[in-house]
Amino acid sequence: MTQNLKSEICNLKSKNMLEFLNQRRTIRKYTDKPIDAELMNRLLEAACRASNTGNMQAYSIVVTTDAEIKKQLAPTHFNQPMTTQAQAVLTFCADFNRFTKWCEQREADAGYDNFQSFIASAIDAMLVAQTFAIAAESEGLGICYLGTATYNAGEIIDILQLPKLVVPITAITVGYPAEMPELTDRLPLEAVVHSEVYKDFTAENINRLYAEKKTANFTRISLLKTTNRLWRRYLPMFATRAKTMSFFRKNFWKC
Amino acid sequence: MTQNLKSEICNLKSKNMLEFLNQRRTIRKYTDKPIDAELMNRLLEAACRASNTGNMQAYSIVVTTDAEIKKQLAPTHFNQPMTTQAQAVLTFCADFNRFTKWCEQREADAGYDNFQSFIASAIDAMLVAQTFAIAAESEGLGICYLGTATYNAGEIIDILQLPKLVVPITAITVGYPAEMPELTDRLPLEAVVHSEVYKDFTAENINRLYAEKKTANFTRISLLKTTNRLWRRYLPMFATRAKTMSFFRKNFWKC
Repeated sequence: MTQNLKSEICNLKSKNMLEFLNQRRTIRKYTDKPIDAELMNRLLEAACRASNTGNMQAYSIVVTTDAEIKKQLAPTHFNQPMTTQAQAVLTFCADFNRFTKWCEQREADAGYDNFQSFIASAIDAMLVAQTFAIAAESEGLGICYLGTATYNAGEIIDILQLPKLVVPITAITVGYPAEMPELTDRLPLEAVVHSEVYKDFTAENINRLYAEKKTANFTRISLLKTTNRLWRRYLPMFATRAKTMSFFRKNFWKC
Repeated sequence: MTQNLKSEICNLKSKNMLEFLNQRRTIRKYTDKPIDAELMNRLLEAACRASNTGNMQAYSIVVTTDAEIKKQLAPTHFNQPMTTQAQAVLTFCADFNRFTKWCEQREADAGYDNFQSFIASAIDAMLVAQTFAIAAESEGLGICYLGTATYNAGEIIDILQLPKLVVPITAITVGYPAEMPELTDRLPLEAVVHSEVYKDFTAENINRLYAEKKTANFTRISLLKTTNRLWRRYLPMFATRAKTMSFFRKNFWKC
């Protein structure tokens, strides 16, 4: 039985999938070739097959291709050039607005304006985002995640006209690649995978696990390049406490 | 140039990838065939190629195969049978413990114990989780997300011995499929995708967009099956406010 199921489920030559995932790289430079609307729809359809919480699909995706709106979005993403250069910016949002409306029209008390629901819908948004990313890459498109979406969530909400219970979790820029960067380094598997339970790290282990990374080409270049520019602006914001917290409280959950 | 890049990036026959994603289904019943350790490592390696925040890889994955530990985990996942029946339970955690240790050994003030960092590392955890899920499915394995991971995060932390700054975001059960369920329904694309900016829904639109779903086989059966059992226990917990919030505050961020 297993064999039949396997062949039914798995159309894909498995070796190709793992090779494909292992070779992917983030693309930050794009050609001016537009993305066909029909292709974009097929990618979005495939992305929406991702698992989600109780089949509520507690997410929404705002696809922005208009040059003017991308320009408005740019500062919210620290003016990273991908925002305006890419053919499309996709903003993936935690969204309990739609489902709450459905509930309330049926006179049910939805009750999703709480932290637990925020996390559940943020998870839904991320699953659909990553499935979109993989689908897009499989079609020869390049993508770049903008980890900045939650930093300036308030401004993004204004620009994209997101209602209450809809908050941006991440954004992806998409376009046809105009660069082929080196593969970035990763920590060895034993640094991120724990067998059965978590084994906390000794100082010695940390040094050993990070030794290779320290000398890896990507990390070395990145540190040189970014420490003095973006990262220096980025890190202090990363440590922001009150701003983001109070924002999400105001726009999603009450407590 | 684009064509060269495309063929270099895209090993995969794109038609196959979208078909593959469109045909996936969550698998809740597994055979007793074990997962080869070498295969599991290859899946984890591929998953770790996913994008992540500033290449910090602010996540960790606890792979639990031990029957006794899976049994301990079961109540934290509302005793869903997959937890003990699956060959492995993978718990994907937001993890700033490892990177903070690395910073502190270099006498840097890490400062990741805040809400913004929590969200960034939760995003990292979800990207690696979904990439793992797709990789596993491509190898003929079946997966099921346990959306329960954040409800009983405290208990999971105790069982998996997670230190401060490591919190479970989601879990996935994995094994060889012993069922082939129907494809679940999804909302039409226009319910989840917004062009340029968000278009909020009228009552009429909500009714129209949900009309098909209401009669869809999966949703109908799910409602019949689950409303009286799991969902009834699940929903009140879903609305929990204070518990989860204070938990994450205690275990990850301070404010």
